[in-house]
Amino acid sequence: MIYLTRKEHFNAAHKLARPDWSDEKNIEVFGKCANANWHGHNFDLYVTVKGNPDPLTGFVIDLKRLSTIIKEEIVEALDHKNLNLDVPFMEGLMPSTENLAIKIWEQLLPHIEAHGCQIHCIKLYETENNFVEYFG
Amino acid sequence: MIYLTRKEHFNAAHKLARPDWSDEKNIEVFGKCANANWHGHNFDLYVTVKGNPDPLTGFVIDLKRLSTIIKEEIVEALDHKNLNLDVPFMEGLMPSTENLAIKIWEQLLPHIEAHGCQIHCIKLYETENNFVEYFG
Amino acid sequence: MIYLTRKEHFNAAHKLARPDWSDEKNIEVFGKCANANWHGHNFDLYVTVKGNPDPLTGFVIDLKRLSTIIKEEIVEALDHKNLNLDVPFMEGLMPSTENLAIKIWEQLLPHIEAHGCQIHCIKLYETENNFVEYFG
Amino acid sequence: MIYLTRKEHFNAAHKLARPDWSDEKNIEVFGKCANANWHGHNFDLYVTVKGNPDPLTGFVIDLKRLSTIIKEEIVEALDHKNLNLDVPFMEGLMPSTENLAIKIWEQLLPHIEAHGCQIHCIKLYETENNFVEYFG
Amino acid sequence: MIYLTRKEHFNAAHKLARPDWSDEKNIEVFGKCANANWHGHNFDLYVTVKGNPDPLTGFVIDLKRLSTIIKEEIVEALDHKNLNLDVPFMEGLMPSTENLAIKIWEQLLPHIEAHGCQIHCIKLYETENNFVEYFG
Amino acid sequence: MIYLTRKEHFNAAHKLARPDWSDEKNIEVFGKCANANWHGHNFDLYVTVKGNPDPLTGFVIDLKRLSTIIKEEIVEALDHKNLNLDVPFMEGLMPSTENLAIKIWEQLLPHIEAHGCQIHCIKLYETENNFVEYFG
Repeated sequence: MIYLTRKEHFNAAHKLARPDWSDEKNIEVFGKCANANWHGHNFDLYVTVKGNPDPLTGFVIDLKRLSTIIKEEIVEALDHKNLNLDVPFMEGLMPSTENLAIKIWEQLLPHIEAHGCQIHCIKLYETENNFVEYFG
Repeated sequence: MIYLTRKEHFNAAHKLARPDWSDEKNIEVFGKCANANWHGHNFDLYVTVKGNPDPLTGFVIDLKRLSTIIKEEIVEALDHKNLNLDVPFMEGLMPSTENLAIKIWEQLLPHIEAHGCQIHCIKLYETENNFVEYFG
Repeated sequence: MIYLTRKEHFNAAHKLARPDWSDEKNIEVFGKCANANWHGHNFDLYVTVKGNPDPLTGFVIDLKRLSTIIKEEIVEALDHKNLNLDVPFMEGLMPSTENLAIKIWEQLLPHIEAHGCQIHCIKLYETENNFVEYFG
Repeated sequence: MIYLTRKEHFNAAHKLARPDWSDEKNIEVFGKCANANWHGHNFDLYVTVKGNPDPLTGFVIDLKRLSTIIKEEIVEALDHKNLNLDVPFMEGLMPSTENLAIKIWEQLLPHIEAHGCQIHCIKLYETENNFVEYFG
Repeated sequence: MIYLTRKEHFNAAHKLARPDWSDEKNIEVFGKCANANWHGHNFDLYVTVKGNPDPLTGFVIDLKRLSTIIKEEIVEALDHKNLNLDVPFMEGLMPSTENLAIKIWEQLLPHIEAHGCQIHCIKLYETENNFVEYFG
Repeated sequence: MIYLTRKEHFNAAHKLARPDWSDEKNIEVFGKCANANWHGHNFDLYVTVKGNPDPLTGFVIDLKRLSTIIKEEIVEALDHKNLNLDVPFMEGLMPSTENLAIKIWEQLLPHIEAHGCQIHCIKLYETENNFVEYFG
């Protein structure tokens, strides 16, 4: 079994703050991330799929196809967007990197499986010093 | 003469759109960068100063002092902020990377000169594929 | 148990195309990678071995020895070479990154085991956006 | 379950040489790393913790808290220090990257568990070409 | 005046060998780079243009436009190609990184000037350890 | 004219402290960098030479030759060494990155000029956040 990873990226705004909490409580818990007028990041997304290489092509999955799936299902929805306001699949969720990675997995799953592969890992960098991994 | 560079970073939201233009015109000119609900970036900032090394210390400027100046004058003002709404020295200006670099130069200039150095260059990365340099 | 990784690199040419397929079919399946006159990459290779640190040296394996093994067995065979034409252990195989990682594992295995370690993973970058991992 | 990683760094001196061995033997086994007057590295440290995101905050652990723990327990003890002479928890141990990673795990463990998380991995880069991983 | 840089990349094969020299002489001068069956690289290309920011947009040049020019004029011609055989504007020239950078400048010049900017620098990485810069 | 850059690296220990100052004064001025038992860094060195490409080879200078010069004259002298104690050409000098860059220029100059090139710049990274440039 081979694990194949494709990196894509998107730039987005968000804020970490609960509407059911006071401003003071949000700042106490989330610090600068609760800034009322938002802040943002360049997110780097690594999608790892696993499978056996096709004997004819040597491919687990065609990388151009994998890249297109990630761009159509994820980058299109998140790039140059506000994660709190603009993204249907994040509605009602705190847009932490943790929750975002879980939702990206769910969005990609049927499209990857339709190509006979499994998702192994969603790895999402919020900054070069912080990232999360989700294995389903 | 030696050129000494310190890298700092900040994460911010912005949008590129003129309030005196229609939404259609803004999207035509600025594309996704005009998204009404903002987007954001991890900005990397390189400040290059020049001068002669002090014969006693071997330093052009104390790097900890240079780092503190950049953090107090720039990172404090920009990190986890909205460049259109939250930053006094960007008021009334389109928050393009170009304009931001010029304003960072102006903010830092008196503080660097007070330590007997000159600023040589402000280099500002918006993404790993796009950056600007300003030499005054 | 400790996992120790050494990075090496090589630059090579290849093309993805089956001689038993027509040019049209190869371009349909492999796109630009089927270019008749080849293309190439800077490959980054990460070899991860696992074992218990030696109580006297604190080493899982001497890194200089590990580096020499990878250079002698892999880099020597692949660097500045054509993966379709010049590499005995790739003969008859589509030189996809997937197949190349599997063959690198097989080439290294006896040399690593001779030093009392196991290979844990071969990680091979074709570009900064694409890589594969093989765990045997 | 989500895996969350924070990167910190420190700069330190060390030497690899056993006091109970002759200089000749140390140089034979450890090569340049046995240089009597020390050498040094910029170490990059990746601490990965695992847990379930809190339903209210979306966090596995507050990243600022995780960063503070690593800085207080590890960076404070190792940064701008000599790993053979200045670090109580390395006393009597060969300061190989392998041993250092194991000791960092032990130092962090109670502080991470006190926040309801588990450590998953300590990943320690000695150079960009060499790193170790320890999973407990 | 502001300097704005856009990074693009392409993957290509080449060989360094003069057809009017013997194989022995080519290997003596060019070493492994003269391998008869080619080798290849992931090239990173940084195009720096200079100009004054437009007072309405804050832009020296629209980055999407700059990216499109580089892709249409350079990446299209070089990506997944053989620099000795497939590139009209390199015909008859040794495909060293030096010569390639000069030719990229010449190809881009009229297209950049048509947008009211000047090219300042073509910076071309052949590997992460080797790059050239050309300023016209 | 073309500017060609080669990157090499070395790992070294040093301390910033004047023997003619008290420990208190050294710590006041140099902070953690004055640690009595040394600390260290992975230094990245970029040597930029300039010249006209040879019409026969397309080279400003043979990169293998440039790499060998840097390794023989600089890396050999600095790698796995103590910059205060082990390096003849740094004797009596504060081993700041500034002073080290100037001395590297002086060491390399005759060897580069012997190949018909000029040195344009010595760029020396002490950490990924701090570097100096010297242009002679």
